[in-house]
Amino acid sequence: MIQLKSLALEVDVEPRRLIIRLLDQTLLPHQEKWLIIETLPQMIEAIQSLRVRGAPLIGIAASFMLAQLACEMTATKNAAELLLKAADELYEARPTAVNLMICVNRMKKVIQQKLSIDNVVNEAIAIFNEDVELCQRIAQHGAELLSDGDYVLTHCNTGGLATAGIGTALGVIRLAFEQGKKIHVYVDETRPLLQGGRLTAWELQKLKIPCTLITDNMAAHLMSLKKIHKAIVGSDRIAINGDFANKIGTYSVAVNCHYHGIPFYVAAPVTTVDVECKSGDDIPIEQRAAHEVLGVKGAFGEVQWAPSGVQVYNPAFDVTPSQLVSRWILDRGVYSKENIQQGVLKSC
Amino acid sequence: MIQLKSLALEVDVEPRRLIIRLLDQTLLPHQEKWLIIETLPQMIEAIQSLRVRGAPLIGIAASFMLAQLACEMTATKNAAELLLKAADELYEARPTAVNLMICVNRMKKVIQQKLSIDNVVNEAIAIFNEDVELCQRIAQHGAELLSDGDYVLTHCNTGGLATAGIGTALGVIRLAFEQGKKIHVYVDETRPLLQGGRLTAWELQKLKIPCTLITDNMAAHLMSLKKIHKAIVGSDRIAINGDFANKIGTYSVAVNCHYHGIPFYVAAPVTTVDVECKSGDDIPIEQRAAHEVLGVKGAFGEVQWAPSGVQVYNPAFDVTPSQLVSRWILDRGVYSKENIQQGVLKSC
Repeated sequence: MIQLKSLALEVDVEPRRLIIRLLDQTLLPHQEKWLIIETLPQMIEAIQSLRVRGAPLIGIAASFMLAQLACEMTATKNAAELLLKAADELYEARPTAVNLMICVNRMKKVIQQKLSIDNVVNEAIAIFNEDVELCQRIAQHGAELLSDGDYVLTHCNTGGLATAGIGTALGVIRLAFEQGKKIHVYVDETRPLLQGGRLTAWELQKLKIPCTLITDNMAAHLMSLKKIHKAIVGSDRIAINGDFANKIGTYSVAVNCHYHGIPFYVAAPVTTVDVECKSGDDIPIEQRAAHEVLGVKGAFGEVQWAPSGVQVYNPAFDVTPSQLVSRWILDRGVYSKENIQQGVLKSC
Repeated sequence: MIQLKSLALEVDVEPRRLIIRLLDQTLLPHQEKWLIIETLPQMIEAIQSLRVRGAPLIGIAASFMLAQLACEMTATKNAAELLLKAADELYEARPTAVNLMICVNRMKKVIQQKLSIDNVVNEAIAIFNEDVELCQRIAQHGAELLSDGDYVLTHCNTGGLATAGIGTALGVIRLAFEQGKKIHVYVDETRPLLQGGRLTAWELQKLKIPCTLITDNMAAHLMSLKKIHKAIVGSDRIAINGDFANKIGTYSVAVNCHYHGIPFYVAAPVTTVDVECKSGDDIPIEQRAAHEVLGVKGAFGEVQWAPSGVQVYNPAFDVTPSQLVSRWILDRGVYSKENIQQGVLKSC
């Protein structure tokens, strides 16, 4: 048996059987509850309700779902057809992060070319292992941009919970810290789903990396006090002109960094680059339910503070244009605006 | 008996007796509970825990507290001395909003000059009535800046709950709406204490003014989509160079407006101008307890989503520099940067 383990996903690969366990991220940090995912609807629900989240990890989890289904369908005649249908449903589960689509497309290719349990399972394992490797390379490139004594702002969660490896933006911070640099992290709580306040704070506490939790609207004030030296975020989709989508609020961080002359970095694997998107205008933005803005939900239950019936706008992501980005930190290397303009992302 | 009534403060003025009722704003919008304030510690607690809030209303409530104490102290020999001591305690209750200090100083003057119940009570009544009038004038001046069809962003709560009258920034919006202009309000929820999500949304719903609630980090995204035409906020203290303190997050709104070329207005009465402050550097910023950022508290109880023990930064206000302000809307009129530079605030 092969066992694959990351902070929020565990897969037991047995002969003709795959057991997928997800750490339910909606219950963190107060409950560490692992879910066993046994059906396609369970996985789709887990993706849509953000029990599993983070652009890279969603793609990986969806790939294993297809591998699990392939194991179950050995005796089924129209297995390929059914698997491709399942793949399409997974593809549609969330619209913004492209990693999901890229991973599902990789899996579909294997299903279409030569369907066998081994091929499908091995492709999912390869996707997992590649992500671990991509995270390492991102961290190695990015850590060079962080200096001893830096106070670094981050938004949302881009760590071990969001990937198969050490993370993207948070992986950069982690490696710089492990290299012995004194790094202090300012963590945006990231309303409405509080990925910063619940997840990043939890990860940093586990890693013993010094951090301070703030509400999203405090970052600009800290910048005006010169208490933030750099900002680093992840991405859900990068267009070839360098525009990128990321968790709602990222754009506001970018504008504020620009105004204060603070370097603003985006860190992501090549699986986040969408060569089909010429610019951010081509990236679809997921709109989510009103109740997320009217209150909060977690291991503690659900509370609502806003008056019922008030109209709500709840985009899950925003687009940050290329001109606000100082450096793109990919697994392949660190790119400048000039590199991007020369079309370096076209070959991803 | 005279009865003074505003949305969140009611005072019955009887001969030698004053009854002060506060609408507990920490419980809104789900509970409308009125508190009878009978002692100085009760009032100080109500101010510090934001049961009564809003720069103008805090000053008014403190003034009535002194009037109530004056009524109780008729037979006391050292009444003036005791009242001045109480005044000093109220003065210190919260550090940023200058209205509190200005009102308390007015009351102290009356106590020192010629202490009588009538004088002290009448001064408090005058402060209340003046604020109603100041709000009206602010609204009249400000409404001219809003156009039919405007989508207006506001932050925190600056309406009837924050003043004795119709409000400052929200009063401007209200009057423009009542003049028949189609106005749509984007309401920042205003973490951590959610004055937007709980209070402004509640007021606008009551007034039937169309509004959309957003999390603070969504405003910039809306600006990039050209869905916000103007922003208007209140203030807790304005320095004579035009810099001003307001609820944390205001500065981020101002920076984003600047970047997007969106007019950014601040609306406040003259009682918010502090001629002792040359610039925003002279304004003290209140730091508040960590638990406010770790979770939320309200009529629904208290929930915490962040891991216990995580370090928190929780400034209640930030300072927006003069250069980011398009217009200062005071009761005296609307001022431009040029007016401010010519020293118009020095004579407030």
